[in-house]
Amino acid sequence: MNVSALLTSAGINIGVCALLLFLCSLLRKQPENVNVYFGRRLAQEHSRLRDSGPLDRLVPSASWLVKAWGTSEEELLGVAGLDAVVFVRMIVLSIRIFSIAAVVCLFGVLPANYFGQDTHHRKISSESLDVFTIGNVDPGSRWLWVHCLSLYIISCSACVLLYTEYRSIARMRLIHITRSPPSPSHFTVLVRAIPWSVEEPYDDAVKNFFLKYHASTYLSHQMIYRVGKVQKLMNGAEEVYNKIRLQATSIELTCRPSKYTCGLCGGKLESLQYQNDFELNAKKLELNLSDLRTKLKECASAFVFFKTRYAAVVASQVLQSSNPMSWVTDLAPEPHDIYWSNLWIPYRQLWFRRIATLMASIVIMFLFLIPVTFVQGLTQLDQLQQRLPFLKGILKKHFVNQIVTGYLPSVILLLFLYIVPPLMMLFSTLEGSVSHSGRKKSACYKVLYFNIWNVFFVNVLSGSIIKQLNVISSPKGIPTELAKAVPSQATFFITYVLTSGWASLSSEVMQLFSLIWNLIRRHILRRKDDLDSVPSFPYHTEIPRVLLFGLLGFTCAILAPLIIPFLLVYFFLGYVVYRNQVLNVYIPKYETGGNMWPMMHNTTIFSLVLAQIIALGVFGLKRSPVASGFTIPLVICTLLFNEYCRKRFHPVFQNFSAQDLIDMDEQDEKCGRMEEIHQQLHMAYCQFSPAETNDESCRDVGPIGIGGENKVDSKELEIELEHPTLPGLPISSLQQSVKSLDACNPTQ
Amino acid sequence: MNVSALLTSAGINIGVCALLLFLCSLLRKQPENVNVYFGRRLAQEHSRLRDSGPLDRLVPSASWLVKAWGTSEEELLGVAGLDAVVFVRMIVLSIRIFSIAAVVCLFGVLPANYFGQDTHHRKISSESLDVFTIGNVDPGSRWLWVHCLSLYIISCSACVLLYTEYRSIARMRLIHITRSPPSPSHFTVLVRAIPWSVEEPYDDAVKNFFLKYHASTYLSHQMIYRVGKVQKLMNGAEEVYNKIRLQATSIELTCRPSKYTCGLCGGKLESLQYQNDFELNAKKLELNLSDLRTKLKECASAFVFFKTRYAAVVASQVLQSSNPMSWVTDLAPEPHDIYWSNLWIPYRQLWFRRIATLMASIVIMFLFLIPVTFVQGLTQLDQLQQRLPFLKGILKKHFVNQIVTGYLPSVILLLFLYIVPPLMMLFSTLEGSVSHSGRKKSACYKVLYFNIWNVFFVNVLSGSIIKQLNVISSPKGIPTELAKAVPSQATFFITYVLTSGWASLSSEVMQLFSLIWNLIRRHILRRKDDLDSVPSFPYHTEIPRVLLFGLLGFTCAILAPLIIPFLLVYFFLGYVVYRNQVLNVYIPKYETGGNMWPMMHNTTIFSLVLAQIIALGVFGLKRSPVASGFTIPLVICTLLFNEYCRKRFHPVFQNFSAQDLIDMDEQDEKCGRMEEIHQQLHMAYCQFSPAETNDESCRDVGPIGIGGENKVDSKELEIELEHPTLPGLPISSLQQSVKSLDACNPTQ
Repeated sequence: MNVSALLTSAGINIGVCALLLFLCSLLRKQPENVNVYFGRRLAQEHSRLRDSGPLDRLVPSASWLVKAWGTSEEELLGVAGLDAVVFVRMIVLSIRIFSIAAVVCLFGVLPANYFGQDTHHRKISSESLDVFTIGNVDPGSRWLWVHCLSLYIISCSACVLLYTEYRSIARMRLIHITRSPPSPSHFTVLVRAIPWSVEEPYDDAVKNFFLKYHASTYLSHQMIYRVGKVQKLMNGAEEVYNKIRLQATSIELTCRPSKYTCGLCGGKLESLQYQNDFELNAKKLELNLSDLRTKLKECASAFVFFKTRYAAVVASQVLQSSNPMSWVTDLAPEPHDIYWSNLWIPYRQLWFRRIATLMASIVIMFLFLIPVTFVQGLTQLDQLQQRLPFLKGILKKHFVNQIVTGYLPSVILLLFLYIVPPLMMLFSTLEGSVSHSGRKKSACYKVLYFNIWNVFFVNVLSGSIIKQLNVISSPKGIPTELAKAVPSQATFFITYVLTSGWASLSSEVMQLFSLIWNLIRRHILRRKDDLDSVPSFPYHTEIPRVLLFGLLGFTCAILAPLIIPFLLVYFFLGYVVYRNQVLNVYIPKYETGGNMWPMMHNTTIFSLVLAQIIALGVFGLKRSPVASGFTIPLVICTLLFNEYCRKRFHPVFQNFSAQDLIDMDEQDEKCGRMEEIHQQLHMAYCQFSPAETNDESCRDVGPIGIGGENKVDSKELEIELEHPTLPGLPISSLQQSVKSLDACNPTQ
Repeated sequence: MNVSALLTSAGINIGVCALLLFLCSLLRKQPENVNVYFGRRLAQEHSRLRDSGPLDRLVPSASWLVKAWGTSEEELLGVAGLDAVVFVRMIVLSIRIFSIAAVVCLFGVLPANYFGQDTHHRKISSESLDVFTIGNVDPGSRWLWVHCLSLYIISCSACVLLYTEYRSIARMRLIHITRSPPSPSHFTVLVRAIPWSVEEPYDDAVKNFFLKYHASTYLSHQMIYRVGKVQKLMNGAEEVYNKIRLQATSIELTCRPSKYTCGLCGGKLESLQYQNDFELNAKKLELNLSDLRTKLKECASAFVFFKTRYAAVVASQVLQSSNPMSWVTDLAPEPHDIYWSNLWIPYRQLWFRRIATLMASIVIMFLFLIPVTFVQGLTQLDQLQQRLPFLKGILKKHFVNQIVTGYLPSVILLLFLYIVPPLMMLFSTLEGSVSHSGRKKSACYKVLYFNIWNVFFVNVLSGSIIKQLNVISSPKGIPTELAKAVPSQATFFITYVLTSGWASLSSEVMQLFSLIWNLIRRHILRRKDDLDSVPSFPYHTEIPRVLLFGLLGFTCAILAPLIIPFLLVYFFLGYVVYRNQVLNVYIPKYETGGNMWPMMHNTTIFSLVLAQIIALGVFGLKRSPVASGFTIPLVICTLLFNEYCRKRFHPVFQNFSAQDLIDMDEQDEKCGRMEEIHQQLHMAYCQFSPAETNDESCRDVGPIGIGGENKVDSKELEIELEHPTLPGLPISSLQQSVKSLDACNPTQ
């Protein structure tokens, strides 16, 4: 591939990107697409967007790009939560690192590569791209010092930037935890593997255990019922019968609407003013309820509520029983983050499921080699012509040739890569994660490993499967193998950034799938817009993508510095696009408090070390033992730096600190907010939608919601949508909480 | 090597062993050696052993072997603690597994190997040992099924036995924790990395922090002072001055002897009856003491005492501060287990020290290759003769030849191996472990890895260093390489068991070093016996040794089954010898509650998997793909089994469970023992020996002990020696505790 082919490829991509952005600017002005491009704003802000005139609709504008660029971080934090901010920070970090790398490489490494051999240089446009890579430098050349120095500058600046970023995100996370309104998840512990005994049902076992061992802090609990899809159908008929019977029993009882208790969940919460009314009815209803409850399959899991945050954290971290496989405690996920379908999974299955899905992911990773190997073959046109001789005529044409070598491989690879994230998400679901965020995080890891292996390593170590397996099975040879392969594959990576990178951003901003689905729904199915279907940010596809481009950048930086300008364009475009998406399209359904950052940090360190190891191999191949020698301490220092960061910051992302929690508890106690929070805990973790169980009167107290959806229903979601910061708590209490928070913190 | 050479070697070893045991039987009857062979009994039981008559002294007897064999496990537990029992259990487990293996291999594998090829067999005595190994089986032979089946039987029985053993030891550990008298370590947390501030000294910082965040459970604390060797000298003069000044100040004050407070440690404990007397004096002394305390270098570490065990465990496990590098808490080691010299090490250094010592250990591991390679050369006599031609004459002699090939290599290796444990112990000390047991455990790991690498792998993969590095750098080839090498090295391992194994046991029972030292001390230095110098059990040398022989047994079992009888002899002898040593010689200075077991379990699993992988390679080499195919699920199942055990039992060895601790706390509370325990905590964790600071009157309240030894002094030790179960608590209180324990638990 020569410079003009690269420029052709870049030209095509710029054209495609521009076209898509242009289209997007038009489409987003059409009123029927408003729920595709402004899903979050419609759902959260209820702002009927200003309807532009019919003429205005046909004029594309770039104002949305400017707006996305100009939004401040505080605004972003308020609108999209810490997770989105952390993701954008990752892109900003990449821009910073690669800006430094660009200066170093374009003014240091690129000339060194270009003039590395005393050859006659042709016209730039017909020059092969290889003369810009380290392959053009003579072995034993003094120029290699430039590469070594550049590697030092890039590594050191990356480490410094990573450290400040980790520190600042850790600080943001702490502020997020301490300053945000009280979250029910801080008071709740998910208990699993409750031991089974014939004498006492799970319900009593939980009560007795926590009343005995955590008497001073235990508040109440909430059993989890097994409501799988099969059971749902089986319970169908029974349920209707029970409903009728229950209504007949309770029709004579009058009672005030209860806001805080959900009958099915046991009403264990002593909810003050409703207590008296309740007791009367409760006794009469008891028989029926207990009848019903035994018919529902209680799982060996429960949510246990504690009086203070500190007590909940203590209960979640201390080993409860001398049998570590029973009474397993963890902090509960946020109410809307819970993945109810996985809560019934017996704890004993979990470790096995985890191992099984790990194995399955590894198998998928290796099976994927087959299409990738084929795709890789396309870049070697000679081979393709040999295999498919009828293509000879077409491939001889200059333009076709350039498209096939510069564009087609990436596109095919891209299409194959599209099926991976849903597959990995499925694996993560089967793995048994109890929260949506945990599921997404796990899928994120899987997709990341998959991408790094299948996009980077397989392409670099190209060739047959057997050869690849040989390479990974001899770790000592890896630096040399990589050093041989990476510079020669640099062209592929540049085109990969151009196609996969730029195109993915354009298609992200276009929202092609949503757009088509919206058209089908509107014109064929003729359904109304529903605001519930606004998606949350697909971290499990986007984080691995951004990190993969970071990896390509680090590994190619000093070997083939031409990649950096294209990468920088990608990151700048990504910065604008993702900010726009976060502001307008996606809705934050839950909040992990920046829990994804350690993964991003670790991957960046991995990329850095990989780049250093490849450089080590290259310096070895180029017979520059001194440069090799200088690279080894760099690798060790980078690893030590990572170890230090892990010690210094990582625990903050795993646990809450006693100091913070106790301070928060004290403040709530002082403001008298505690009672209020306690009353709302049950409601927040109600398995059956309160809209059904608690609908206008407590007549429907009973497992009526059993046949309903196995997750929060739309009414509850609406509450959350209006107040995304405190999912699950009713509006009035939230407003009160916020008010009293303000009263307590005059400094804020 | 042929059978007769093996028998020669065995003969020599049996002779040496018999001679040493005979000598030992005699020496242990001599009154001057009584503190070598009966150290524990002299120190702990104060039983002046029956002095035998002069004639009786010259008659060896085997009664001690019988006694060691016959002692019950309960007795052993009472005398030597759980750690010793766990160690003996490991040997018993090995005996059980290898008894099964012996039956399977001697009746199944050995005939299959011997008749594996249709060759004419010579007379047994002149038969080469190779005909008994798997090397004698034809490729593709049907006999390989016998090997595969044997591997299955051995693996399955090992897993079943390991599981029952793990379960039973976990149960013993729980009983040990819950039934033993209250230990001060359960109430104490070691806080490190106390943040430095100009306004408040460490002392106040600790008090304020714990009073604020653990107000309801905090009892008191005890700062740790930096008393290095250099500082000790520097403080010398100052100390004398202070002593005089203090005495002048306090001479006019009269006060009763205080039993529970140690003046230097601040006397923060409100010790009831002494309170009133104390307050008067305390105010007057305050000026001087505070003067002095500022002159002592306080470290950023302290022992914090809590009111209940549960509170201490909670404080030790929960992240205290939002900066994970400050207020780092851990459960404190037992008072006598503390390694005071390492307590001053700043927490920030620890991770770096750990990495540095890890690196150093790895370097040592590889440098050790040089002597081992030379030793290995001796088994190939031809090579030796070529290199040292003058030896040709001697080596031609049959007997010399047999000794050199059968005996000498192991002896040289053994001598080199003797210097390793002290070296690794030094590394573990530098690593910064705060307890003797932690130091020993860490050294144990290092010696274990060292042994496995240098005795097993290096001998198996023999040859030059470069070749070995090549082998480890290509993991895929390892099964094949091992499969080629292990059967051919089986002879060496048999002789290794004979020499290193049997001889090490004999020398262990002889206590050669102690014996010589005792002679020197008695006759040259003319010192009296001191009971303090009784050593504790050298787990860091003995555990790795026993585990190494287990590894050799597993890996050679189906390849060269002749090793098993020799191993069984080793384990039986070891059973008797170690029981005798534990009963008579070594003193248990601290108790980890069987914390070494997970290491033993993991190493056994490792050995098992290694044996399976080698078998996989062998079946591959012998062209029996079906047998190979059947071995793969075995490897996977073994790993899954290990993962299950880790989930099921390992947490019990890392943490205490809330359930147990709360039950214990409640029981103590009910019996009114709590106050008493609280009062003794300070005393237990006093850095400066109470004998010096608290000697007969509180006049000496002050840092007089500063110049003294940096550990518990002999007087305190004496108390411990008399009541080994509760180190650090005064006798009277111990007796009371035991009495009230009896009162509370009438069932016991």
